[in-house]
Amino acid sequence: MQDYFDHAHGVPGATPGIEHDEIANLPGGSGQVRILCIDYSPEQVAIQEIANLDDFVAQHRPEWTSVRWICVDGLSNTRAIQALATKYDLHPLAVEDMLQKTQRSKVEAYGGEDSAFMARLFIVTHALQIRDGSLEHAQVSIFLGHKTVLTFQDSRSVEWDAIRQRLKAKGSRLRKSDASFLAYALLDAIVDSCFPILETYSDRAEELEGLILGETQPGLINQIHQFKRDLLLLRWVVWPMREVVLYLQREPHECVSETTRVYLRDLYDHVVQIIDLIETYREIAGDLIETYMSSVSNRMNEIMKVLTLIGTIFIPLTFLAGVYGMNFRHFPELDQEWAYPVFWLVCLLTAGVMILVFRRRHWL
Amino acid sequence: MQDYFDHAHGVPGATPGIEHDEIANLPGGSGQVRILCIDYSPEQVAIQEIANLDDFVAQHRPEWTSVRWICVDGLSNTRAIQALATKYDLHPLAVEDMLQKTQRSKVEAYGGEDSAFMARLFIVTHALQIRDGSLEHAQVSIFLGHKTVLTFQDSRSVEWDAIRQRLKAKGSRLRKSDASFLAYALLDAIVDSCFPILETYSDRAEELEGLILGETQPGLINQIHQFKRDLLLLRWVVWPMREVVLYLQREPHECVSETTRVYLRDLYDHVVQIIDLIETYREIAGDLIETYMSSVSNRMNEIMKVLTLIGTIFIPLTFLAGVYGMNFRHFPELDQEWAYPVFWLVCLLTAGVMILVFRRRHWL
Amino acid sequence: MQDYFDHAHGVPGATPGIEHDEIANLPGGSGQVRILCIDYSPEQVAIQEIANLDDFVAQHRPEWTSVRWICVDGLSNTRAIQALATKYDLHPLAVEDMLQKTQRSKVEAYGGEDSAFMARLFIVTHALQIRDGSLEHAQVSIFLGHKTVLTFQDSRSVEWDAIRQRLKAKGSRLRKSDASFLAYALLDAIVDSCFPILETYSDRAEELEGLILGETQPGLINQIHQFKRDLLLLRWVVWPMREVVLYLQREPHECVSETTRVYLRDLYDHVVQIIDLIETYREIAGDLIETYMSSVSNRMNEIMKVLTLIGTIFIPLTFLAGVYGMNFRHFPELDQEWAYPVFWLVCLLTAGVMILVFRRRHWL
Amino acid sequence: MQDYFDHAHGVPGATPGIEHDEIANLPGGSGQVRILCIDYSPEQVAIQEIANLDDFVAQHRPEWTSVRWICVDGLSNTRAIQALATKYDLHPLAVEDMLQKTQRSKVEAYGGEDSAFMARLFIVTHALQIRDGSLEHAQVSIFLGHKTVLTFQDSRSVEWDAIRQRLKAKGSRLRKSDASFLAYALLDAIVDSCFPILETYSDRAEELEGLILGETQPGLINQIHQFKRDLLLLRWVVWPMREVVLYLQREPHECVSETTRVYLRDLYDHVVQIIDLIETYREIAGDLIETYMSSVSNRMNEIMKVLTLIGTIFIPLTFLAGVYGMNFRHFPELDQEWAYPVFWLVCLLTAGVMILVFRRRHWL
Amino acid sequence: MQDYFDHAHGVPGATPGIEHDEIANLPGGSGQVRILCIDYSPEQVAIQEIANLDDFVAQHRPEWTSVRWICVDGLSNTRAIQALATKYDLHPLAVEDMLQKTQRSKVEAYGGEDSAFMARLFIVTHALQIRDGSLEHAQVSIFLGHKTVLTFQDSRSVEWDAIRQRLKAKGSRLRKSDASFLAYALLDAIVDSCFPILETYSDRAEELEGLILGETQPGLINQIHQFKRDLLLLRWVVWPMREVVLYLQREPHECVSETTRVYLRDLYDHVVQIIDLIETYREIAGDLIETYMSSVSNRMNEIMKVLTLIGTIFIPLTFLAGVYGMNFRHFPELDQEWAYPVFWLVCLLTAGVMILVFRRRHWL
Repeated sequence: MQDYFDHAHGVPGATPGIEHDEIANLPGGSGQVRILCIDYSPEQVAIQEIANLDDFVAQHRPEWTSVRWICVDGLSNTRAIQALATKYDLHPLAVEDMLQKTQRSKVEAYGGEDSAFMARLFIVTHALQIRDGSLEHAQVSIFLGHKTVLTFQDSRSVEWDAIRQRLKAKGSRLRKSDASFLAYALLDAIVDSCFPILETYSDRAEELEGLILGETQPGLINQIHQFKRDLLLLRWVVWPMREVVLYLQREPHECVSETTRVYLRDLYDHVVQIIDLIETYREIAGDLIETYMSSVSNRMNEIMKVLTLIGTIFIPLTFLAGVYGMNFRHFPELDQEWAYPVFWLVCLLTAGVMILVFRRRHWL
Repeated sequence: MQDYFDHAHGVPGATPGIEHDEIANLPGGSGQVRILCIDYSPEQVAIQEIANLDDFVAQHRPEWTSVRWICVDGLSNTRAIQALATKYDLHPLAVEDMLQKTQRSKVEAYGGEDSAFMARLFIVTHALQIRDGSLEHAQVSIFLGHKTVLTFQDSRSVEWDAIRQRLKAKGSRLRKSDASFLAYALLDAIVDSCFPILETYSDRAEELEGLILGETQPGLINQIHQFKRDLLLLRWVVWPMREVVLYLQREPHECVSETTRVYLRDLYDHVVQIIDLIETYREIAGDLIETYMSSVSNRMNEIMKVLTLIGTIFIPLTFLAGVYGMNFRHFPELDQEWAYPVFWLVCLLTAGVMILVFRRRHWL
Repeated sequence: MQDYFDHAHGVPGATPGIEHDEIANLPGGSGQVRILCIDYSPEQVAIQEIANLDDFVAQHRPEWTSVRWICVDGLSNTRAIQALATKYDLHPLAVEDMLQKTQRSKVEAYGGEDSAFMARLFIVTHALQIRDGSLEHAQVSIFLGHKTVLTFQDSRSVEWDAIRQRLKAKGSRLRKSDASFLAYALLDAIVDSCFPILETYSDRAEELEGLILGETQPGLINQIHQFKRDLLLLRWVVWPMREVVLYLQREPHECVSETTRVYLRDLYDHVVQIIDLIETYREIAGDLIETYMSSVSNRMNEIMKVLTLIGTIFIPLTFLAGVYGMNFRHFPELDQEWAYPVFWLVCLLTAGVMILVFRRRHWL
Repeated sequence: MQDYFDHAHGVPGATPGIEHDEIANLPGGSGQVRILCIDYSPEQVAIQEIANLDDFVAQHRPEWTSVRWICVDGLSNTRAIQALATKYDLHPLAVEDMLQKTQRSKVEAYGGEDSAFMARLFIVTHALQIRDGSLEHAQVSIFLGHKTVLTFQDSRSVEWDAIRQRLKAKGSRLRKSDASFLAYALLDAIVDSCFPILETYSDRAEELEGLILGETQPGLINQIHQFKRDLLLLRWVVWPMREVVLYLQREPHECVSETTRVYLRDLYDHVVQIIDLIETYREIAGDLIETYMSSVSNRMNEIMKVLTLIGTIFIPLTFLAGVYGMNFRHFPELDQEWAYPVFWLVCLLTAGVMILVFRRRHWL
Repeated sequence: MQDYFDHAHGVPGATPGIEHDEIANLPGGSGQVRILCIDYSPEQVAIQEIANLDDFVAQHRPEWTSVRWICVDGLSNTRAIQALATKYDLHPLAVEDMLQKTQRSKVEAYGGEDSAFMARLFIVTHALQIRDGSLEHAQVSIFLGHKTVLTFQDSRSVEWDAIRQRLKAKGSRLRKSDASFLAYALLDAIVDSCFPILETYSDRAEELEGLILGETQPGLINQIHQFKRDLLLLRWVVWPMREVVLYLQREPHECVSETTRVYLRDLYDHVVQIIDLIETYREIAGDLIETYMSSVSNRMNEIMKVLTLIGTIFIPLTFLAGVYGMNFRHFPELDQEWAYPVFWLVCLLTAGVMILVFRRRHWL
C-alpha cells in the first residue's frame, strides 16, 4: 500500500517548485549515478559515459549532432541534477516533480516564446516491473526540447538498451528522426513493457482459478486481494498515461513533429488496449473473489451437511437403545430370546432407510 | 482467459511498426494461404485464386475494373504479405497491427496528400464464432483505398461467401457501388454474425436459469462464470466497433462515399443494438449468479433445517428413555404394569405435538 | 428473455436493406391486415378502410387534404407493404428495420434534396402493454413526410382510437396542425401509455414488499427477478426514446414544424420522467431482493436458533439421567428414597435457569 | 412508493396540453382556495386576498406597481385557474403540467416574439416537508413574466410568510428588485427548506447507527430501507433542480435580470451542496445496511457458537455416563468403592479442560 | 456525521446574502479574534497584529506596499468582520457563505466593471486536520483583489507560519510576486496538508489489514467503517477543489496573473493526485470490509466445524454404550469376560478411523 507514498514532499506551505540553487541542498548529496550522453545524426552516433560533469557542462555539443540524449540513471546525485537543470534551464516545478518519486503521470509544457524558460515538454511516467513476484513501479521523467532529450530515472528501472541498439543501427528510422521521435520511442518502450506484465497476470488469474477450485489454502484470499491490488496499482500508473499520450498527439507543440504524431496515435492505441485489459482483469478478479467465497462456503456447508447427516442417522438408534435400557419391571420385549438380534435388525433397517431417503433427495 | 493474449508483441523497446523489408524475416515463413483476387465493375466480375504471387504483383489490373478486392485467408505466409504490403504501400504500423492477432478494434487513416504513403483507411476488427460450444474470435484487417480493398484474416475465420455471391449477381447494389461500400458490406457481415451468437447466449441464459431452479449440479457456477466471461469477451470485441463505425460515418475521408455513409449509419445502429443486448445479458448473468447463490443456500438451509428438526424431536424422547433407565431403588413408575405402554404413548404424543407445532409455524 | 429476439434477421453477409422489388418475396405472403387511410384538413375529415390496395395506389389524394395518415395494422401482408413502399418511396434500409420486429428505437432522416429518395423521417419505437400479467412490446414504425404519415405495426398493438376521435373533433389542435404534429401525437400516445404500466409496477413493488415481510412463498424470488427483468425490458424500450425525441426536437428537419417542436419538448420531459421512474424502481427492486434475502436468512436463523436452544436445554438433563443409569455398586444416591423426586426437581430447576438466562440475553 | 404517482394523467392518446376552455370541465370544481395578490414597488406594497375573482380579472393593476405576485394556494378551484390562465395567457402544456401533481422539476420557456403567447418562464418544482415523521412533497408551479409572478401550489405546502415579511420591509433588496428576483427568492426558500430536512436525516442516520449496535429490534431493517427510500425521493426532487437553476442562470431570457443571475449562481451552489449531501447519506445508508446485516449475523453466530459449545462439553460426559450404564457382567470399575466419586472427578476435569482450551482459542 | 452540519443557515425564505449593516447583529458578538495585517513588496515587509480595528480601517495602506494580506483567525467577532466587509466592499452573498461553516468548496467572481462592487475572487475551501485521531475540517475563505488578500478562518485551523516565513525571506518568489500568487500559495498549503493525512490513512489501512488477519476484536468493523467515512469526508472536501483550481487556472480574471496560472496547473495536479489516492483508498476500504466479513465468517465456520466434528465422533460411541446398557435377558455379549475391554477397543478404533477419514478429507 505504501507504493503510493515514497514521496519526498516537504512541509505544507513550503515554496512550490525547487529553484536551481536549492537543488544541491536537498538530502541525497553526491551519490553514484550513471550519466550517459548520446549524440546522433543519420550518419553518426557517439555514446559517452560522463565521468566529469563539470567539464561536460562547459563543452558545446558537436556540430554534426542532430539529437542529444542525456540519460541519468539514479537520482541520488543532487549536484549532477543541479548542473544539468541549470545548463538545460529546467523549470523549478518540473524539477520538484522529477524528484518526488510518486508523481502522477502527466505532461506539462513549460516555457516558450513569452517565457524566460526555453520551450520544453516535461513528461512524467512510471515504468512497471515484476521483481521477485511483486509489482514495482519507478518514476521516469523525460524532458523534451527541440534537439535534446533528458531522461531521469531511479536506478536503471527501465532498460533502454534495446533503444540504444536501434540508435547504433545505421539507417534505422530512429536515427533518421528528430528528438520527439526519440521521446516517443522511450514512451513506447515503457508502455510496451506492460504487455509481458499483463501476460503474467493473465497466467496468475488462471492459476488462482485453478487453486480456488482445488484444495483450500489458508492464504488464498490474500493472494486474490493482492492480485486485485496490483491491478489497482497498474491502473493508477496506466490510466493517466492515456491523457499524456492524447495530449502529446493532439495539442500542437513546437517540439513534436508531424511524423511523431502518427506514431503517437499508435502508442495511444496501445495504452487504451492496456487499460481495457486491466479493466477486464479487474472484473475477472471480482469474479474470482465471488467464486472463492462461494466455493469456501459450499465446501463448509458440504462438511456440515455430512456431519449432521451422520448425527441424524444415529439419533433414533440411540433413542431405541435408551428405550431398552429402561428398568421397567413389566417390559415384555426384554425377556424374548429374539429381542437382541431383532434390535440390531431394526437399527440397521432404520439406518438403511434413512440413508436411502437422503440419497434419493440428493442430500448425501 | 488467454483469449486476450495470442499476441506476437516483440521486445519492449523494439522498433515500432514493421518495415516492408523486415516482414519476410518474421517467423511463419511461407505457409500455405489462399489469396483471392476479385475484380468487379457493374458490368463484369472476375474471381481468380492467386497461385503465383510474383506474377500477380507484376501485372496491372484490367481496365474495366472499378473495384479490386484482394482477400488473404491466413497470415502464415510472410513472403506473400511482404509482396502485397510493398505493392499496395501499406504503412509499417498498420502491418504490425495486422500481424498482432489481438489488436483492439480500431480504424486508422494513413497517408494522404502530404504523406509518402497513399491514402488508406486501415480497419481492424474481430470476427466472432462459436466453435464446439466455446466462443472464439479472430482478427480481420481491412485496408480500404480508393479503388482497392485488401482483407487479411487468420485461416478463414469469416466466411465471405455470401458477399462473393452478391458480387456475382449482376445489378446488385454492391456491384454498382464503390470500394467503400464493399468495406461496409464486409464489416456488416462481421457485425451481423453477432446476432446468431447473441441468440445462442439468449438460449443459454434460459437454459442456465432452468438448471439453477432444478437439481444441483457440481459445475453450474463455473458454467455461469463462463457465460459471464464470454460476454466480457464479446464486449471487448464489440465495444470498440462503435467508435470504429462512428469514425467511418462521421469523419470525412476521401475513400468513403456519401452513399456508404448512409449505410454506415445503419451499421452503427446494429452495433449499438448488440452492445445494448450484451449489457442486458451481463445484467441477467449477474442475476443468475445471485439466484444461484440464493438457491444453493436455500437448499442447504432446507436440508439443515429438516435434519435439525428430526434431532429436536428425538432429544426429549431420548431424555425420557434415559430417565427410566436410572437405577434409583425407589422409583414408583418402574413397578407399574402400565408403565411401559404409557411410556410409548407419551413418546408418540410428545413427537406428535412437536410435529404439529412445527407444522403450524411453517417450519416443516 | 427471448423478448429481445423475435428478429427476422437474415444470413450475415446478406444484402443490407430490402429493395422494393424484394419485399413481396419475403415469407408472410398476403395475410389479412387492416389498412386505414385518414385524410384531414381543418374543415374536413375522411376515414376509409382500404380493401383494394391497387386501386388506392393508383388514385391521387383529394385536393382539400392537408394531411394523409395511412395506418397499417399488421405486417403479414408483404404485397401491401411493397405497394406502399413503392408508392411512398420508402428507403430500403428503413423497410428492413420496419420488418425486423425488435429494432432498437431510433429516428433516421432519409432522402432530401441531393438524394434520389424523398425527404422522410423514419421513427421506430415500441409500444408496451401488460397482457395477462406479463409485459409485452410491439414495434411501431412511423414514416413522416411533408404531408403524409405512414404507420406500420404488428396486429393493433397500439390503439390509436383516441387520436382518431380527436381528428374527428372539428376545431381540435390536431386537425388544425400539420403532419409532424400528428406524428408527435402518435409518439405521445405511445409514451403516455407507459404511465399506467409504471403505476402497475408501483403497485406490484408494494405488493412484493408485503409478501416479503409476510409468509415465505416458494416462487417469490422468481417474482422479484421477473419484476427486475420487466424493468430491464422497459428500460431497453424507453431509454433510446430519449435520443429519438431529443433528435426530433433539436435537429432541424424540413418535415417538423416549429409548433410541433414546442410539444416535443413536453414529450421529452415525459420520457425523462419515465426513465427516472424506471431507474427508481430498479433501485427499489434491488432493495427488495436484499430485503428478501435478509428476511429468508433471518427466518431460517430464527428456526435454527430455537431448535438449538431446545437441544441445549435437554443436553445436561440427558447427561444427568445417564449418570443415574450407571451401574456402580457403591452409588449412595440410588438408595435414597428422596432421590427420584429430587432428580426431577433438579431437572426442572436446571431447565428453568437455562430458559431464564436465554430470555435475559434475548436469545429466546 | 405511490409518492411518485398522485398523477392525474389522462387516457394515453388524449390531447396534450389543456386548452383554456377545457380547464373548468376538469374534476375538482370550485373548491375553496386562497388567492393572494401582492403588488409592490420600492415605495409601496399592497396585499389583498381575492374573494371575487371575476371582479379582479376585470380590473387593471395600479399604476405604481412594479411587480405583481399572484399566489394561489390550492388547485381544487378549476374555475379560478381557468380565469387566471385566460387573463395571464398561460400555455396549455404548462397548465397541464401544473395540474399534474407529480411533474418532474423543470423549467420551460413559452411564448416570446414570434409566438401567439406572451414570453413566460414556467418553473415546476417540489417543496419538501417532514410531516408526522414521513417525508412529503408537493408540487409548486411558478410562472414568471416581465412584471408578474404567478405561483400555484396544493394547499399551502410552502409557507411564503417569510418572503411576504421581507416584501413588507421597506428598503429590502426584494422590494427594490424585479419579478425575476421574486421568483429567485421563492425558489431559494424552497431549496433552503431542504437543509433542515437533511439535518433531520443526519440525526436519523446517527440514531439508526446507535440502534444497530444496540439491541436487536424487529423492524430495524425496514426503518433503514425507509431511510434509503426517503433519500431516493429527495434525490428525485432535488436532482432535476440542478438543471432548472443552471438553465435559469445560463440561458439568457428577457424575463431574468443580470442581478438575479448572480443570486441564481448562489442558489445553484446550494442545490449542488444538497445533492452532495444526499449522495453522501445514500452511501452512509448503504453502510448502515451492511453493518446491520453483519451485526445481525454476528449476533446469531455468537448465540449458535455458545449453544454448540455447551453441547460439545456435555457430549463426552454423556458418553461416559452411558459407558458405566452398560450391563457387562465383567466390569471391574463398577465394583470399586471409589468409582462413583472418581467418575464425577473425571467429568469435572474433562469439562474444565475443554472450557480452558476453548477459552485459550478465544472461542468462549 | 454531523461534520456536514455545523451550519448557521437561517430560516428558509430569509433574505439571501448578508448585507453589511446586518453582520453585527448576528449572534457571536465581539469575541476575541487575532487579526494580522501583512504588507509586503520585494524590498520590504511589515507584519502587525491589529488591536484597534477602527483605527486600522481609517488608515490608508503605506505607499510601498505591493500586496496587503489581512488574515483573520476566528469568526466570532462579527463587529470586526463588519468593519472589514465594509472597508473591502465584500459581496453580501460571499459574506453569508463565509459565515456558514460548512459551505462546499467553490470559487466565485464578484463585482467588476459593470458592478457596484469591486472585482474580487471569493474562494471557499476547507483545511483538513487529524486531531486526537479523528479527522476535522475547518472552512477557510479567501478574498482575492488586485492588491489585497483577505483570509477568514475559524480559530487558526490552518497554520500559515511557513508562508509568513517565506514572506520574511528577502528574494523569495512569493515576495516578488503579486496578490494572486499569495492566494495560490495559501491554497497550495491547504492542499499539500492533505498528503500527510493521506499517509496516515495509508498506515491505518495497513494496520487495519493486520488486525483483520489477526485476532478478532469487537469494534473492528466500526473502525473500518470510520475509515471509510473519513474518506467520504475527505472526498467531500477535496472533490470540489478540483473545479475550484480548474476555474482559477482556466477562466481569465483580472486578479490572476499569468505566472500564477502556471503554478495553478501544478496545484491542479496535486488535487487530482489526492483525489486519485482517495478513490484508491476507498476501493481498498471496500476490500477491507469484504476481507473482514470473510475472515469473521471463516473463523466462525471453523469453530462450528471443529465442534460438530467432536460431536460426530462421539455420536456412534454413545450409541454403542447405550446398546450395552440395554436390559435384554438374552444378551450374549454381556456375559463374556473380554466384552468390556473389547468395547473400549471398538470405541477407540471407531474414533481413530473417523479422525483419519476427516483428516484425509482435510476437514480437520
